[in-house]
Amino acid sequence: MTHKATIIGGGVIGGGWVARFLLSGWDVAVFDPDPDAERKISEVLGNARRALPALYDKSLPAEGDLVFYDNLGAALDGSTWVQESVPERLKLKHKIHEEVAKLAPADAIIGSSTSGFKPSKLNAVGSRVIVAHPFNPVYLLPLVELVGDAKICAAAGDHLRSIGMFPLIVRKEIEAHIADRLLEAVWREALWLIRDGICSTEELDEAIRMGFGLRWAQMGLFETYRIAGGEAGMKHFMEQFGPALSWPWSKLMDVPEFTEELVELIAGQSDAQSGHKSIRELERLRDDNLIGMMRALKKSGSGVGEVLNAHEDTLPTPGQRKLPVTVDRMIPQSWTDCNNQMNEAHYLEASAQATDRFMEMIGANADYVASGNSYFTVESHIQFVTELHAGEHLVVTTQVLSGSGKRMHLFHRLLRQDGKLAATVETMLIHVDLTSRATSLPTEAVAKCLARFAREHAELELPQGVGRYVGERRDEK
Amino acid sequence: MTHKATIIGGGVIGGGWVARFLLSGWDVAVFDPDPDAERKISEVLGNARRALPALYDKSLPAEGDLVFYDNLGAALDGSTWVQESVPERLKLKHKIHEEVAKLAPADAIIGSSTSGFKPSKLNAVGSRVIVAHPFNPVYLLPLVELVGDAKICAAAGDHLRSIGMFPLIVRKEIEAHIADRLLEAVWREALWLIRDGICSTEELDEAIRMGFGLRWAQMGLFETYRIAGGEAGMKHFMEQFGPALSWPWSKLMDVPEFTEELVELIAGQSDAQSGHKSIRELERLRDDNLIGMMRALKKSGSGVGEVLNAHEDTLPTPGQRKLPVTVDRMIPQSWTDCNNQMNEAHYLEASAQATDRFMEMIGANADYVASGNSYFTVESHIQFVTELHAGEHLVVTTQVLSGSGKRMHLFHRLLRQDGKLAATVETMLIHVDLTSRATSLPTEAVAKCLARFAREHAELELPQGVGRYVGERRDEK
Repeated sequence: MTHKATIIGGGVIGGGWVARFLLSGWDVAVFDPDPDAERKISEVLGNARRALPALYDKSLPAEGDLVFYDNLGAALDGSTWVQESVPERLKLKHKIHEEVAKLAPADAIIGSSTSGFKPSKLNAVGSRVIVAHPFNPVYLLPLVELVGDAKICAAAGDHLRSIGMFPLIVRKEIEAHIADRLLEAVWREALWLIRDGICSTEELDEAIRMGFGLRWAQMGLFETYRIAGGEAGMKHFMEQFGPALSWPWSKLMDVPEFTEELVELIAGQSDAQSGHKSIRELERLRDDNLIGMMRALKKSGSGVGEVLNAHEDTLPTPGQRKLPVTVDRMIPQSWTDCNNQMNEAHYLEASAQATDRFMEMIGANADYVASGNSYFTVESHIQFVTELHAGEHLVVTTQVLSGSGKRMHLFHRLLRQDGKLAATVETMLIHVDLTSRATSLPTEAVAKCLARFAREHAELELPQGVGRYVGERRDEK
Repeated sequence: MTHKATIIGGGVIGGGWVARFLLSGWDVAVFDPDPDAERKISEVLGNARRALPALYDKSLPAEGDLVFYDNLGAALDGSTWVQESVPERLKLKHKIHEEVAKLAPADAIIGSSTSGFKPSKLNAVGSRVIVAHPFNPVYLLPLVELVGDAKICAAAGDHLRSIGMFPLIVRKEIEAHIADRLLEAVWREALWLIRDGICSTEELDEAIRMGFGLRWAQMGLFETYRIAGGEAGMKHFMEQFGPALSWPWSKLMDVPEFTEELVELIAGQSDAQSGHKSIRELERLRDDNLIGMMRALKKSGSGVGEVLNAHEDTLPTPGQRKLPVTVDRMIPQSWTDCNNQMNEAHYLEASAQATDRFMEMIGANADYVASGNSYFTVESHIQFVTELHAGEHLVVTTQVLSGSGKRMHLFHRLLRQDGKLAATVETMLIHVDLTSRATSLPTEAVAKCLARFAREHAELELPQGVGRYVGERRDEK
């Protein structure tokens, strides 16, 4: 059953929600009287289509349908999730939620992206809204703070996990929830530092991204301090640093006055820092950086890495054709060189992914490896035929050339999205006992499975390029 | 000339400085009366040796000498940089700096890792100390806040850049400098949120690392908000959100009381969150995550990525042997699978790195490519001989099998640190005109250079495995 999401209010946040739901296979209805809404949302979608799929080594579901509505009732019809992302004005939000409460399906989840209002305040008009507060870019950052009715938040959390996000239920309502309260604290102190000429906006930003900012992408405040406390632990850390809280280190007692002068100072410093890049260039740079770092965290499974791995496990494995499809995914930016061309190492990474998937298909899966058996690659031959680029779709099919005894001889075809051959990888693997590191026979179950594929594929045409040596003339065969 | 650094005070920060200097090729003298100092420092060094070299695709310089001293004068003799990292007690720091001022070389840079004191306060005793405040882990995070005498800070900055760090000169002195003031602000707000039961320590940490924490690893506060302000820019952003500063969103007006009850609450929640991993395990997980993300940022050159790229450019390129050495580096954790074995794709990545380096050696360097010429790989053949592991040293030598006309036929040998052959990659490249994407002849200069190597290498033994096809029997040749 395809779910439907209704997005009320475009812009950066609303557009981000459109992208998240749409690229996860939901149908999306948009209601926004702004004549510019469709243009703004399509810009966010453009960013999202090059970014979100790049986080995964499998394909996302096919996009749902996106429809723009003039009529709120029609936009809400049949909706599973209604998300309001209009400007932070209480009266406006009340007006919208009064109408939504009348027109939305009785069991629809109704969320507000509000960064400031408590659900009790939103629901003063008798609606049943929960706070579902995301972070920009919504199509990449997984966090959504959920506040409000426990039952509705729990159901909302399930949906959010199903689209690869990380729901965080806030135990008690409070203005600005959790993260923005922390950001507000930093913002105030930062304004003081700029105002008092301690540093420029650029210097403050470097003080973040060259230091604790890097730490906080993978472990938060308390875990970081726990480590700093060493073997003595968290209590020791607090005993060491606790008293510091009484020191007048920060001017947080006071709110700096937001004068025209201060605004100009900051605007000018920001232009000097970042003005040489357009906003679109900055957005794409930010997204490429986030993708690279988030993919890096998949390896250890820390933080967002765990969210990505868990979601990837739910994505469908590549399907069957005449030849098994062993890879079906988007080529991420991080696989390409400066000329946007996929770097040769990643051809072999795709091949290794194909080999792993084929091993699963014959029963030599993670459990098999954990039990002390595996296949090691001993020789590979790659023909680079056509260039591949970031954002393109890559499919790999695998043909068994032979599979008996200790050996498994495979031929991977790397296909471009138009079906054209991009590269071939012929590869020989040997079965190994992981404990002794000596070659060994596979289990009977795996051997049987492999033999069946070998028999089926023996009836197929032998691939072009099997048995090539480097530089062999093409008219010699 | 080998520089010498004198580290006063071991522990996590002092040990981190030891590692930074030592692994950058400086000699290091340590003075710390704590009988446990040598043990603690060697633990930090153990972490650093598996982490810092993994950031780079080239080898770091050979380690300097590390000597522990009982006598401060001897420890200070001939020192270029003296770094004090003793506990945050002013009287203790004064005592040390009075002595250091008498005994250190007149032109030595004297830094304090103090997180709180202003240089004017440190120098009340007539010393000439600057604040050089690093971030844990010092052997990975690049930021060092410098405060104090402008001339000394400038000289200190040069040294820090030369060891791959990012110096940030703070324009005016203030307690806690820049970053810790921001952290203090977050800490206070966080304590309120825990105390008032809005969230647990684990939930607060997720609110950071699943959201804005990821953003801040690659762009700071002001740049992030500039993007959020959209095309209208920073001024618009501030006009939109400026008024929010007057709202009582955060309880920053007040400092929460640090009761035994609050300490127990936090300690308990921290244990529940992270207690299943030892501190050493958490440190290594943190370091692996940081390495993965920092390496990811090298691609765009954002933030720490730029620092790493700039420092890597200063590292010596691999030297000559009978065959040119085209790769000489440590194998990072991020190149290995769960069984700690280097993944096959990275064999080809090392080979691609070797090819790139060889191209530089014949004049087909970045400028050549920028002018519209390059070599594209058309075919590669890999023999996987021996396993490689994270932390091991990898050297690649390159032999030219033929190089004339449009073709370049190379043979890379991947060697383990004991000289044993780990893998071979035979690869054929074709010269291409990047504009037309058609094959083309190299320039005369490059052709000449390549031909010279080809002539020299023709006199060497033909490598084992040239011209192999996958699965070829070894007794057939």
